[in-house]
Amino acid sequence: MRVAASRFAARETVEQVEEGFAFAPKFDTAGLISVIVMEAGGGDVLMLGQMNAQALELTLSTGEMHYWSRSRQALWRKGQTSGLVQRLVELRVDDDQDALIASVTVAGSGASCHVGYHSCFYRALVLDPSHGEGERPMRLRFTEDAKIFDPVAVYGDLPNPTQL
Amino acid sequence: MRVAASRFAARETVEQVEEGFAFAPKFDTAGLISVIVMEAGGGDVLMLGQMNAQALELTLSTGEMHYWSRSRQALWRKGQTSGLVQRLVELRVDDDQDALIASVTVAGSGASCHVGYHSCFYRALVLDPSHGEGERPMRLRFTEDAKIFDPVAVYGDLPNPTQL
Repeated sequence: MRVAASRFAARETVEQVEEGFAFAPKFDTAGLISVIVMEAGGGDVLMLGQMNAQALELTLSTGEMHYWSRSRQALWRKGQTSGLVQRLVELRVDDDQDALIASVTVAGSGASCHVGYHSCFYRALVLDPSHGEGERPMRLRFTEDAKIFDPVAVYGDLPNPTQL
Repeated sequence: MRVAASRFAARETVEQVEEGFAFAPKFDTAGLISVIVMEAGGGDVLMLGQMNAQALELTLSTGEMHYWSRSRQALWRKGQTSGLVQRLVELRVDDDQDALIASVTVAGSGASCHVGYHSCFYRALVLDPSHGEGERPMRLRFTEDAKIFDPVAVYGDLPNPTQL
């Protein structure tokens, strides 16, 4: 495999990074960059993923989204187990180039969440004035009615990536 | 000020975190959680911010977005200098509760990027088949036509938060 970092530009000046045409992604001290994953065509935000340089390079060379799984500490081709492959349509980068937005189309049912929902963001905080008062516990409400797939049927005995 | 962490639920089981109604945000080893910031009503993704527990608590109690600035190592009320205050409309949380989506309305010109653009994500990678070939440098194109405001006029001599 090619050395991934070689095709990304060096980060030389703030002006170049913010105002220039060179793709110079910034990986954090763990070697990762955050990727906001959205449905192409103005759809939902599906997930927030992490990529290392190799995952980013593989995403660009194959057109299929690859991530770094922090819980498994492994490269991860999205859909490898579930078939819910994400194809890259557009990749945006932010001002200091330490965050990406990937617009994708999703195979099959179109779901992207390992819990079985369409989006990983299937709950919203119930906002009410008591948040200014200090004592009442904060509650979530579900924004999706039902799971798209049964995670046990899809993932079987694979370990759950959620960590406490 | 109240101790922020006290009003968030403890993370007790994977099932509780993924399937429950308790808001139990996970802060990373640096004490931060990532927040995708979007325009309310299905608009653009504006930025990816970071919050510590205090910033999250202040956001909820005031209704105005607060962040933790990693470059300045300081709590940051968005709009404090620029007037481009972001008001919280909805807050979603993901499956393992280590990422948030804040839907916001933005004061004034509606811009959210310190470089002067509407969104921090004002550039896209030019995707072409050469990404599979390995040699051609990767180029960006601008997706916004012009800056919304002049950052020098707004921020003056304040240090630029972008770090190389």
